[in-house]
Amino acid sequence: MPTRNRAQFINSLSGFKSANLIATQDKQGHTNVAIFSSVVHLGASPALVAFIMRPDTGQRHTLDNILETQVYTINQISETFYKQAHQTSARYPIDDSEFDMTGLHCGYLDQVPYVKESSLKYVVKLKEILPITLNNTQMVIGEITDVLCEESAITEDGYIDIEALQTVSVSGLDSYHSSQRLSRLNYAKPNIPSHEIEPSK
Amino acid sequence: MPTRNRAQFINSLSGFKSANLIATQDKQGHTNVAIFSSVVHLGASPALVAFIMRPDTGQRHTLDNILETQVYTINQISETFYKQAHQTSARYPIDDSEFDMTGLHCGYLDQVPYVKESSLKYVVKLKEILPITLNNTQMVIGEITDVLCEESAITEDGYIDIEALQTVSVSGLDSYHSSQRLSRLNYAKPNIPSHEIEPSK
Repeated sequence: MPTRNRAQFINSLSGFKSANLIATQDKQGHTNVAIFSSVVHLGASPALVAFIMRPDTGQRHTLDNILETQVYTINQISETFYKQAHQTSARYPIDDSEFDMTGLHCGYLDQVPYVKESSLKYVVKLKEILPITLNNTQMVIGEITDVLCEESAITEDGYIDIEALQTVSVSGLDSYHSSQRLSRLNYAKPNIPSHEIEPSK
Repeated sequence: MPTRNRAQFINSLSGFKSANLIATQDKQGHTNVAIFSSVVHLGASPALVAFIMRPDTGQRHTLDNILETQVYTINQISETFYKQAHQTSARYPIDDSEFDMTGLHCGYLDQVPYVKESSLKYVVKLKEILPITLNNTQMVIGEITDVLCEESAITEDGYIDIEALQTVSVSGLDSYHSSQRLSRLNYAKPNIPSHEIEPSK
């Protein structure tokens, strides 16, 4: 298979992927924002989240900034700005902020840049970078310190209705999807078939 | 926040998650199948895929089997059997196969068990287990060796239309979603705004 076809194919295998923008800045305050489809939940206590850094992409600026400032934000991408989010993957020169280039707006929480358009975003403090020597990638692990979310999307049991926030998902390299809830299911127990539970809100 | 509410909340932050069943067996041929929402694409060449193992769950049998046999399958979950897939998260005794308990059907490719109900599944050979000491989890990394997929879902450019396969996604701990494609976008370049591309099929 040609390289790009192979990339499409293998990227499709893992299933639907999260769609997030990671916003960073260097010590001089030059901002950067880049799209990642590899953000993955690691654990709730402590609240850890990880993403995969590839060595061969324009996303390198993201890691340089994180190493400099030790802090970043992860911003869920929604239907209203997914094309601008995708555009951040273009290889802009280091002096160009993807905020300026794509028309996304930069806000700050405690001097950490975030994407104003995002309805659910959070500040992450770098904890560890694990090298994955098998393919020269790195897993960047951080701890979530502050969450900015529309209160109406948070249900009584803690679940955040990210579908109501119009959060999108990605498949392959370039396909974006909205979602439709099938149901929320009960906490599974032996001898009780899984069944739908009432939404809390 | 109570522990489970906190788990719901933090699990919602990473965005939509992939929904997969991992099928394994021990050396005696006792099968196991367990649901994972942490399967993540690592790279296309070599074709590497990873998932996160938590120490405190019934999923432990999955890792024991992988350590014994060095091989497993990852099976995308679709709308037609997501409730049975969810049910695999119940803590069954080690002697009970989740296949028998949930009514899912076990097939074999080169003696590796897979989920017959899944329209897209692949055989993975264990490559490395990376300990994540921050929260006592492990990243299990494997190489994809064989893919079983309905041919009609594979487009000319290598992209697999997993929406056509009715693959679902997960949010939080227990919410399952079908998808609706917004669009596929072009390979992003500076000075050319992201735009929709024709589907190849």
